[in-house]
Amino acid sequence: MDARLVAVAGGQAPADLVIKGGKLVNVYSGEIYDGGVAIAGDTIAAIGEVDYAIGEGTRIIDAGGDFITPGFIDGHIHPESSNLSIRSFAEIALKHGTTSIMTDLHEIGVVGGLEAIEAVIAENQATDLNLYFVVPSHVPFSPMLETSGGEFNTEIIKRALARPDAVGLSEAVGHYILAGFPDLMASIDATLAVRGNTVQGHLPDMEGPTLNACLAAGVSTDHEALDGPQSLERLRNGCHVMLRENSAARTLAVQLGYLLEGDYDSSRLSMVCDDLHCCDAVRRGHMDELIRIALATGLPFIKAIQMVTLNAARAFNLDQSIGGLAPGKRADINITTGPEAFTVKSVISGGKQILDNGEMLVDYPAAEHDAVLLDTLSLLNPITADSFKMAAPEGAAKVKVLVMDTLPWIPITTPREVVLEVIDGVVKCDVEQDVLYIAQVERHGKNGNVGKAFMGGFTLKSGAIASSVGHDNHNVIVLGTNFEDMAVAVNRVVEVQGGQVVVEGGQVIAEVLYPICGLLSDLSAEELALEKDKVNAAIHERGSQIPIPFMFLSFICLAALPNFAITDKGFIDVMTQQIIDPIIGVEA
Amino acid sequence: MDARLVAVAGGQAPADLVIKGGKLVNVYSGEIYDGGVAIAGDTIAAIGEVDYAIGEGTRIIDAGGDFITPGFIDGHIHPESSNLSIRSFAEIALKHGTTSIMTDLHEIGVVGGLEAIEAVIAENQATDLNLYFVVPSHVPFSPMLETSGGEFNTEIIKRALARPDAVGLSEAVGHYILAGFPDLMASIDATLAVRGNTVQGHLPDMEGPTLNACLAAGVSTDHEALDGPQSLERLRNGCHVMLRENSAARTLAVQLGYLLEGDYDSSRLSMVCDDLHCCDAVRRGHMDELIRIALATGLPFIKAIQMVTLNAARAFNLDQSIGGLAPGKRADINITTGPEAFTVKSVISGGKQILDNGEMLVDYPAAEHDAVLLDTLSLLNPITADSFKMAAPEGAAKVKVLVMDTLPWIPITTPREVVLEVIDGVVKCDVEQDVLYIAQVERHGKNGNVGKAFMGGFTLKSGAIASSVGHDNHNVIVLGTNFEDMAVAVNRVVEVQGGQVVVEGGQVIAEVLYPICGLLSDLSAEELALEKDKVNAAIHERGSQIPIPFMFLSFICLAALPNFAITDKGFIDVMTQQIIDPIIGVEA
Repeated sequence: MDARLVAVAGGQAPADLVIKGGKLVNVYSGEIYDGGVAIAGDTIAAIGEVDYAIGEGTRIIDAGGDFITPGFIDGHIHPESSNLSIRSFAEIALKHGTTSIMTDLHEIGVVGGLEAIEAVIAENQATDLNLYFVVPSHVPFSPMLETSGGEFNTEIIKRALARPDAVGLSEAVGHYILAGFPDLMASIDATLAVRGNTVQGHLPDMEGPTLNACLAAGVSTDHEALDGPQSLERLRNGCHVMLRENSAARTLAVQLGYLLEGDYDSSRLSMVCDDLHCCDAVRRGHMDELIRIALATGLPFIKAIQMVTLNAARAFNLDQSIGGLAPGKRADINITTGPEAFTVKSVISGGKQILDNGEMLVDYPAAEHDAVLLDTLSLLNPITADSFKMAAPEGAAKVKVLVMDTLPWIPITTPREVVLEVIDGVVKCDVEQDVLYIAQVERHGKNGNVGKAFMGGFTLKSGAIASSVGHDNHNVIVLGTNFEDMAVAVNRVVEVQGGQVVVEGGQVIAEVLYPICGLLSDLSAEELALEKDKVNAAIHERGSQIPIPFMFLSFICLAALPNFAITDKGFIDVMTQQIIDPIIGVEA
Repeated sequence: MDARLVAVAGGQAPADLVIKGGKLVNVYSGEIYDGGVAIAGDTIAAIGEVDYAIGEGTRIIDAGGDFITPGFIDGHIHPESSNLSIRSFAEIALKHGTTSIMTDLHEIGVVGGLEAIEAVIAENQATDLNLYFVVPSHVPFSPMLETSGGEFNTEIIKRALARPDAVGLSEAVGHYILAGFPDLMASIDATLAVRGNTVQGHLPDMEGPTLNACLAAGVSTDHEALDGPQSLERLRNGCHVMLRENSAARTLAVQLGYLLEGDYDSSRLSMVCDDLHCCDAVRRGHMDELIRIALATGLPFIKAIQMVTLNAARAFNLDQSIGGLAPGKRADINITTGPEAFTVKSVISGGKQILDNGEMLVDYPAAEHDAVLLDTLSLLNPITADSFKMAAPEGAAKVKVLVMDTLPWIPITTPREVVLEVIDGVVKCDVEQDVLYIAQVERHGKNGNVGKAFMGGFTLKSGAIASSVGHDNHNVIVLGTNFEDMAVAVNRVVEVQGGQVVVEGGQVIAEVLYPICGLLSDLSAEELALEKDKVNAAIHERGSQIPIPFMFLSFICLAALPNFAITDKGFIDVMTQQIIDPIIGVEA
């Protein structure tokens, strides 16, 4: 009980801050009307007619007729996808009006386990971004098929669930539920034993009975519907639908367009970002961009705001704390334009002003990182050009190999058979046919694995690129036209303890460093975007057409994404979940 | 994790029960469409197209084109107001489609404390009514002004909150919040320390800053708005609004009519009953009657159903468990007509069929009551006619007294000054002026208090009536035209260990017995309604015009209801919370 808050609400003490002269976007009643907000400390004391709360020492912000909305909530976001440290991420998210996120920090967990996640959450305490922890259900996603740094089991998940900021379980995979994985079942039970907790699904390919089974098992939200009918099926079956729009999957307009054709109840729909590329964050925005897209599909303004505030809070049973402008709620408030060219002008998070008419008022210092987050790359064996060589069958001059090609707009891979030459017993790539070497080098110091395969679709003509970001194990992924540059690239990534590099002729041409877990940078979003531009340009100059090649590359390692993947354990047939040999025959 | 449920949902095992051929009322998507429901055990496995779940041993119910709705939820109900044992209450509630209730069992607590409440909850286990416990915040309401059997404090409240069926705190009184009562503040803090818990307000007279203060203190629902503007103010301020319609306050149509004039979001509106008289339960119904009233005001059918299902579940963060038809939800299902002459035809609760086309399939046996619930009336001193005599000031022949008059439609009292005769030093009532004796006799065996005052509005012409039901202390309330009949009536109530009696000329004319805590009967609702008819008829024959006189009388004891009350401690001025003397002067 905050006695001062109650006194301010009751008119017995002056508010710290009053916003007045705005159009109040009331997500509870579904109205927009003239009014203001009175704040005591980090909490809202009153809304509407709030002059009574103005007294000695009350700071007043004139909204100037602009709209006053609740702070935005991203109910499913992996901040690591931005490659920004959590403090830099908080800055860019807050700048665009996001005041709360629900995140599993899964990528951090893959590198350093729960201890590393807790260190990142601790770093976030210095910011004004309100972070709820949704405990990862699978670290790594495919323990039989990849080597990770951190590993979760039910005991660790229970420990994580006991944190006061934990609100549920994240990314429960449909196929694993159907298979009845005992660890997952136990984790779901442990999660739902605490009332208020929820289980977030990862159900991209579930429908009909398989979807029903996942929901019956306890999943209550999903962010993986790709089109309107999938969204509607989830909605009808009691699943809160998180409509996703992100740098790798731009499907929001399609889903909303379909849903707007029916007069469906929208109270169980929210919008989420999932993965946000740093350049998109800087140049498009975060939840404000999703609102713009939603408005362009014809969604009414009040419903668009509800979908990034109240509805998202409800999906986690957090609407008593956040998601609306009302007495007792966290003082998360945006001052925005109306639906025309929607823009967030000012931001208040937890009662503190963050953005003033477009000008940032906060600048979080880089954290002194906990040791668990640093120096996370360690090779068990030296990496040389020989590390990447694939031996052909004895005496073969040519071999038939299975190449995985990425689609150009989404990192889904398809098979292609090609014939490659063998020289000195080693299978050679073929740039003319767009067949490159790809490998993943185990970097957690555990076993020195090097998985190898052949990759198409990136159309790189020379050199090699390597990165310490690779789902869902974050070993070093390397793609190259020759073994020597690949070795230089991998060794450079390890030398700088994480990052993404472009190498040609043995020289580092461009690079961006991720010293935190090999995943994140302490640069600001704006600075990192410029660095990424340089790296991307260096790759594009070498022939690749893919706009964000390293983000695509990071998903080529994901043994859960159809149809093929490369991990430190080898070339993966995702559909059969088997490690296979890319060399499938000897040619005459 | 219910493995069989997941198997049925996934099409791997046959359902126990399938309802098909109905119009599915989907509260999530806001649609009504053709479909069915498949059930495994006590839980829904699938909805919509459910033929795939039919297999060997599956029982099939043909809905025959009728509507299939979720079971109804009453988010705020005191079952004790029906004077039915919890099992009889469960029968009549289930018969009308109510499958879940949220209740504080406050009246039981007033008599026997938490132990008695727990005994009643245990009795309910034998029924199919799903009961969530909302812990009473004040037992009794006015500890300084009345004597109760049970008494709650924060320690007891914490113990109650630890129960697995506890979901929050009930009836936090606005004025007590504003006064900052330390016990209440501590109880609210203890409640909200558990995520998912909510604090239900009792805020009849809060508005503007006082309402804001209560909400800032943590209240998230209220059921005491009496009209449309009060409802809208609560809705706008983030408070879930429970629109109430009950035997003592019929305000639903007024509130809904007002709200329907605006295009307000309805997702935070539910309908509740609060107090339900047994005769109303039998002759009007329960939540089905509220739906009929709502439909008559013009509320769309789907929204009316949402307000007694999903919305109510959401107010308690229970929508993962109940409130809709979806895989994983409790199998609480009604088969109903459409909105025309809305009627519940069949009921399934927790997968078990309760009602089949109007025919009840269950008949819960009377419980073997725990000792804490029985023999609860004990007088410290014998009660005789002298017990009720009020002495006039020495030598006075006439006195001026302050009479409280009840309004005829709601048990709110107003003051009236009258002159009464004094005979043998004792002030005499005056039937001609409609001034009767009223008294409350302490019956918990604690102090033998007898509080005395004068009552108008009941227009009883002869005899006396007494009852062991009297909010918020459940001492014996007695109203009479003469002292002798009053003593007989009180002694009879105590002799039978609870009930309501009508006495004239020293004889019991009519009575109904409440052996459980002096509050509840083991009769069925239908049987009790007939008994109540007889008692009411006996009172009406003696001149009273009030339709449900004993329910009114029970509220005359409530030291929280304006403007006056009688408790065992005396005549209460509710507005000043003082005990006052009804004799205010001596007449010449």
